[in-house]
Amino acid sequence: MIIDAHSHVHDPVETHLRLLDDAGADRTVLFPTRPHPERATDLDSLRQEMSVLERAVSGRGTGDDGHATAWRELDDALAAHPDRFIGFGSVPLSLSEDEVAAFVEREIVGRGLRGIGELTPPPGRAGRVEPVLAAAHDHGDLPVVVHGFAPTTEEDLRTLATLAVRHPSVPLVVSQLGGLNWMTAIELAKETPNLYLELSTAYIVFAVRLAVRELPERTLFGSDAPYGDPVLARATVERVTAPGQVRDLVLGGNLARLLNL
Amino acid sequence: MIIDAHSHVHDPVETHLRLLDDAGADRTVLFPTRPHPERATDLDSLRQEMSVLERAVSGRGTGDDGHATAWRELDDALAAHPDRFIGFGSVPLSLSEDEVAAFVEREIVGRGLRGIGELTPPPGRAGRVEPVLAAAHDHGDLPVVVHGFAPTTEEDLRTLATLAVRHPSVPLVVSQLGGLNWMTAIELAKETPNLYLELSTAYIVFAVRLAVRELPERTLFGSDAPYGDPVLARATVERVTAPGQVRDLVLGGNLARLLNL
Repeated sequence: MIIDAHSHVHDPVETHLRLLDDAGADRTVLFPTRPHPERATDLDSLRQEMSVLERAVSGRGTGDDGHATAWRELDDALAAHPDRFIGFGSVPLSLSEDEVAAFVEREIVGRGLRGIGELTPPPGRAGRVEPVLAAAHDHGDLPVVVHGFAPTTEEDLRTLATLAVRHPSVPLVVSQLGGLNWMTAIELAKETPNLYLELSTAYIVFAVRLAVRELPERTLFGSDAPYGDPVLARATVERVTAPGQVRDLVLGGNLARLLNL
Repeated sequence: MIIDAHSHVHDPVETHLRLLDDAGADRTVLFPTRPHPERATDLDSLRQEMSVLERAVSGRGTGDDGHATAWRELDDALAAHPDRFIGFGSVPLSLSEDEVAAFVEREIVGRGLRGIGELTPPPGRAGRVEPVLAAAHDHGDLPVVVHGFAPTTEEDLRTLATLAVRHPSVPLVVSQLGGLNWMTAIELAKETPNLYLELSTAYIVFAVRLAVRELPERTLFGSDAPYGDPVLARATVERVTAPGQVRDLVLGGNLARLLNL
């Protein structure tokens, strides 16, 4: 089974299904999202959507602006295509530990979601993810996905690895291969058995090759659609692997094991 | 004709030819290079090569360390495969205006190279490229290629656009679609008729789509091999274009026109 480990709700959802079909992806992890760059028709409208994204990944967009809409879009997509989408949900990192526990119980478990993400702590504040890991553990060790590209810092990656050590049964997935800090991400993951690397938007092909070679059971094919393209993301994995077991693990086997699919 | 607008000398050269063959690329622009990440066999040796790269792109590696070897490797590759490689040469940006003029005459024109690059001014110092543009103009408006990904800054891109306006007959190519500053790069290029965008290592697929839509005659397929992969770089262009004139221009036509091929 080919599973894209990272994608966001598209508007309309059908454009997403088409991308998955093009890539031969059976299913995809689906995160709620406020920015919708796929709606943009020109540079001006794209700048508008990207400014929403920038606020989100810098951890500044923690108010309620757009969140309700994003959750509703996720619910609708999951209801319409339960065979294609594997729902994950985000958790506001401004909440207290108790509030995080209640939120995960109500919004993640209560909705029947399969994991948590994509979390976007403010740069330098990856420590805020810890209450989420505790709550994830309390609900059967749900996988937790954290944004890894800029503005996430190298220090944030080190913090995440430390948190993973403290919560060794919770699968912690660093997205986008850690962005520009991909060498550090690979090193940390080698030392941390419950740290996983999702391979989307990797801009250097030998970074992906090396990650898969070092971590064949903990690297995950992902597109980050609509930012990345599922076809190109799958092709990237296929350019750095031979047909066989490792490729199958990276393209879906590793994630299927994490999610008990 | 399919032409990769951006690649570096590989060790051995044959691995590069194989990548070009895989991608169906007839020719490629070839830059001399000191780091050779394609030689690395594991994380440690890769860290070593990448630290050489980091010094180079931060403009700190302006001494003679490794430059002579890099030029010799370029000469050897061009001599062995003149039908596949289109030689470009870099210019030290620490030289005075007169020295730059002499260097371009001796090392670029004297060697029969077809353009200048990949230039890597220190971050915030893109102004140092100006004497090179003047020399490029004096030798028939040679194309000049400047590194565009980090550590190049958004302000550097603005400086490059200003320099392009002052030297309107010299084709100035910004590499890697300006990296994280791709929206600014596209905006600047729209206003600056002799500014070109090379599309390698673009990590967001709709950035490439938008660049091609806005600048069909000034976007250039490039892989940045060995950092990027020619097969994936070509596939990226093909995912965002329909078969036809624009795709053909981006995959080689635009560059062929620049180089009078």
